[in-house]
Amino acid sequence: MNDTFLRACRGEKVEYTPVWLMRQAGRYLPQYQAVRANVDFITLCKTPELAAKVTLQPVNILGVDAAILFSDILIPVEAMGVYLTFSDKKGPVLSEPVRNRSAVDRLIIPDVGEDMPFILETIKTLRRELENKVPLIGFSGAPFTLATYMIEGGSSKNFIHTKRMMFQHSGVFSCLMEKLTATVISYLSAQINAGVQAVQIFDTWAGILTPRDYEEFALPYVKLVVDALKSEQRAKSKEQRVESSVPIIYFANDCAGILKEVKKTGADVIGIDWRIDMADAIKRLGKKVVVQGNLDPCALFLPKEKIEEKVKDILWKGESAKGHIFNLGHGILPETPVENVIAMVEAVHKYGKKE
Amino acid sequence: MNDTFLRACRGEKVEYTPVWLMRQAGRYLPQYQAVRANVDFITLCKTPELAAKVTLQPVNILGVDAAILFSDILIPVEAMGVYLTFSDKKGPVLSEPVRNRSAVDRLIIPDVGEDMPFILETIKTLRRELENKVPLIGFSGAPFTLATYMIEGGSSKNFIHTKRMMFQHSGVFSCLMEKLTATVISYLSAQINAGVQAVQIFDTWAGILTPRDYEEFALPYVKLVVDALKSEQRAKSKEQRVESSVPIIYFANDCAGILKEVKKTGADVIGIDWRIDMADAIKRLGKKVVVQGNLDPCALFLPKEKIEEKVKDILWKGESAKGHIFNLGHGILPETPVENVIAMVEAVHKYGKKE
Repeated sequence: MNDTFLRACRGEKVEYTPVWLMRQAGRYLPQYQAVRANVDFITLCKTPELAAKVTLQPVNILGVDAAILFSDILIPVEAMGVYLTFSDKKGPVLSEPVRNRSAVDRLIIPDVGEDMPFILETIKTLRRELENKVPLIGFSGAPFTLATYMIEGGSSKNFIHTKRMMFQHSGVFSCLMEKLTATVISYLSAQINAGVQAVQIFDTWAGILTPRDYEEFALPYVKLVVDALKSEQRAKSKEQRVESSVPIIYFANDCAGILKEVKKTGADVIGIDWRIDMADAIKRLGKKVVVQGNLDPCALFLPKEKIEEKVKDILWKGESAKGHIFNLGHGILPETPVENVIAMVEAVHKYGKKE
Repeated sequence: MNDTFLRACRGEKVEYTPVWLMRQAGRYLPQYQAVRANVDFITLCKTPELAAKVTLQPVNILGVDAAILFSDILIPVEAMGVYLTFSDKKGPVLSEPVRNRSAVDRLIIPDVGEDMPFILETIKTLRRELENKVPLIGFSGAPFTLATYMIEGGSSKNFIHTKRMMFQHSGVFSCLMEKLTATVISYLSAQINAGVQAVQIFDTWAGILTPRDYEEFALPYVKLVVDALKSEQRAKSKEQRVESSVPIIYFANDCAGILKEVKKTGADVIGIDWRIDMADAIKRLGKKVVVQGNLDPCALFLPKEKIEEKVKDILWKGESAKGHIFNLGHGILPETPVENVIAMVEAVHKYGKKE
């Protein structure tokens, strides 16, 4: 197996810098659009053979070093008992946002096998079809990010409802966060048991918090998730008398102001968005950290020579960390030209070779 | 005159930390809404007596240490020959975004006195009506931020059009930036000549750039503006044989990743948004810098005791800089309770007293 990605996550020696892309399965790929032409987004997420199909597309087309489960960040939110609609334009919309105690009380902590069986099915299909070609990454939204969607009822500009609940009804907020944390733990744990070889926790909206608020309202719950997954792994290793360790990647978008706090999550790999220089990020995180990132997704609109330059710059900076997985600093944009993405992956493999 | 704000901008000794708020004149004030009930937004901006009236409201209601000219960031963009509409929901919309050479060529560099006389009239009215109670701040958008509105046609999520032009048609982009820079210089210079006692340059969208791209595509133009205004000031001081210096405040939103670069603008005061800890920002900028900020606008939804706590924390951190002007880390939100804003201003004045 090409386990370069997994070894890089663990800070082990690798022959070249591995690369995958956030949202690598998606609208920029004509092959993805061909699948979507016959099925709506949420059905695609919930149909294992189709979800597996689009998960594999970028592995074959781009030659990336990892596959990431195709799904939506709000799948577990829906499973908690919230009614969701997905529109191509607006993204996910909750008709009844979760804004008070009784709404929080109504939420259930889903049983993954029963309430989201398609996720586990997709993972099993993928492990079979990947034939150990590259590792499979599972994922979940972080508790805080899932909370923002629940409270705002979708995406938001100023996140007033979220912050109001945080500040004015902190009891209700922490109740919600505890339920979300339990859900995320069982969701990721089930994904690991079904076969994913690494997990990424997406904290898309962590960056809207002050560092102090992040430390109080978001960080503790991420730590609970990381700790729970790690202790499960330890127990499993002991029981099965083999080393079992699934790397945990934590990506907080817009993290430049909260890096010191982000480090405290205890995640194995810290994802870095494009708004901070990689060298600066590593300097602040310390060189014992494995990092992932951080090309501006818009840089993929550049001519190929310019993309190469930017790739080289990030690779060079990544060298100073304990390990580096190349990625974008945020999800790939639907308008991105596929040939440029291929050129980027090739550039990483070419210039990321170790002597 | 209460010139505490101006002295703080210059890093001079003050009796207490001065405070004003970005968007302090606006929708959260019932008195503002009363004025707006009879007139649309753009007419309000362009009617000197009304613009002056709403500018004065927060000075009287909140007791802040500076007034800021009420206007819209896109007024000079419109004067450059772009057709704009303002909607309460969507904000400003350009029916024909500026996306190619011929559109850029058509833009004019406005004559402030001829094309935006109402701005100068408002300033003169305000200086008269303020009777030197507190200083008057003028403002402009930074060239890059104005460019994003022009290119995107309004606000944006990923700023793809802007970055595409930056990356793929850098000649057209720099042409646009040069015209915008000339416009901003003459706009701010005219405001200063009409009587504003400080200026703030708002770079609302600077934070969407990588540090390297910021340094290449945004910073040089801010520097040109700062340098031009400073050299005009020096010439005036020489000519009139009196010290004439109008402090320049530069606020780049989401600045945590670009602070090192932001410092290079040469602005007298650096505005800090709420996503970075004030102590951390000062540490990175160096203690010789005067800072402004940085309470999370959403903190104004907290109970008053909690607001006080947050104010004290920022005041305490601000002490380590050469000077500190208290402000929010972004514009005040329309939903903000006025009594909380008053409590915040009182807390700054109470806890910001110097021994």
